[in-house]
Amino acid sequence: MSALPIRIVLVEPSHPGNIGATARAMKNMALRELVLVQPKQFPHAEATARASGADDVLAEARVVGSVAEALEGCGFVAATTSRERDQNFRVLDVRAAAERIVAEARTSPAAVLFGAERTGLTNEEVILADAFLTVPTNPDFSSLNLAQSVAVVAYEWWKGTHDKPEFKVPAKFRRAKAANKEDLIGFFEHIEAELDRTEFLFPADKRAAMVQNMRNMWQRAGLTYQEVQTLRGMVRALTGGKKRKKKDE
Amino acid sequence: MSALPIRIVLVEPSHPGNIGATARAMKNMALRELVLVQPKQFPHAEATARASGADDVLAEARVVGSVAEALEGCGFVAATTSRERDQNFRVLDVRAAAERIVAEARTSPAAVLFGAERTGLTNEEVILADAFLTVPTNPDFSSLNLAQSVAVVAYEWWKGTHDKPEFKVPAKFRRAKAANKEDLIGFFEHIEAELDRTEFLFPADKRAAMVQNMRNMWQRAGLTYQEVQTLRGMVRALTGGKKRKKKDE
Repeated sequence: MSALPIRIVLVEPSHPGNIGATARAMKNMALRELVLVQPKQFPHAEATARASGADDVLAEARVVGSVAEALEGCGFVAATTSRERDQNFRVLDVRAAAERIVAEARTSPAAVLFGAERTGLTNEEVILADAFLTVPTNPDFSSLNLAQSVAVVAYEWWKGTHDKPEFKVPAKFRRAKAANKEDLIGFFEHIEAELDRTEFLFPADKRAAMVQNMRNMWQRAGLTYQEVQTLRGMVRALTGGKKRKKKDE
Repeated sequence: MSALPIRIVLVEPSHPGNIGATARAMKNMALRELVLVQPKQFPHAEATARASGADDVLAEARVVGSVAEALEGCGFVAATTSRERDQNFRVLDVRAAAERIVAEARTSPAAVLFGAERTGLTNEEVILADAFLTVPTNPDFSSLNLAQSVAVVAYEWWKGTHDKPEFKVPAKFRRAKAANKEDLIGFFEHIEAELDRTEFLFPADKRAAMVQNMRNMWQRAGLTYQEVQTLRGMVRALTGGKKRKKKDE
């Protein structure tokens, strides 16, 4: 069907039934790439039962140990949310998000992150996301079932891909190759290591929050591969670059 | 929430879990009126479990003996279908159907009919329908789960009712005080001056383009006032901060 690489990532799903129902909803909309981060129970008979013909998607699902691992090779990542976020982050309605994903997936694999049933995604789990995605709901009862939420996302993705025979990538999204998540993590760790050499990330009990705020900032910029290289070069330059390296040796 | 009367009718649903999941999907989108035509098992613990907080919708569900009875008092009725129909009938995409339903429900209660899980609606059951409604899917795997199909219909109904053409950022996501342009320029000039001390912005004929690319990056992040302060602190830290200042004096 579609050759566009869109990855669905379920983080710590509790109910195997939801995994199966997710696989079915994905296949209904021609999505194939399912990644499970530390599922509570998988494989499981209930997952297979609810997949109901999407056993192939289930069989090909990858089980991984971390969100970072799940997102390897990805460019644009959207994290689902229904909760208030105190970070200053871009929140896209699911329809707008689907259009964006279709556009982004033309250059690098894109992914959508879904959190655990009861708790959603933690702030740590969304650190690699480029945008939040929300399904609009009745504010008095906004907790969507996990697989139904996947179904709505997949449906909007399908509409965005197949409805307009000539879907054109808006100029504003026509970008150079996005940085993949490994590149970004490499940069994060580089600048944080340098900042650890200074007193900038002190006191220690504030470090995690400071790191998260900074990562959010970079994240929001939607960096390209080339820009991440530039940033790394900039950090090397600011910290003395080759000169220091020699001195350290 | 909504005063518009939209009735969801499940015809001979086999799995009580789907009834519960339907109630939940309905309540997520502020739909309340559920009618069950000869459900195989209802009430049922599995229905209650999957309703997960939409017990009120479940408790108010009416159980009736026929489609005609389920549709009493209704005006416009849409029947879901995924199959080709040999009748010469109007088939509306779910989005168009939702718009129509919103419009029709202003004058009389409207209803959407969903068939049994394995078989869908029979020709007899759709005899009272004014239009067919279809959720577009992958033609190679078009069988949607019953409750997921309700979820997509309810979602489109909600969008049609509550969405203004201009999606507004919910108040809860409105961001902290944005950096004003003077703050940004102050930061730009700070980091560029530091980079000029290194060989990073060389050769000189490339400087203008490099500066522009970097400014674009920061620009795209949509920085807040606080974040600009953080970035300036970071640059000071990376370049040796107070220590160097003293040395320079």
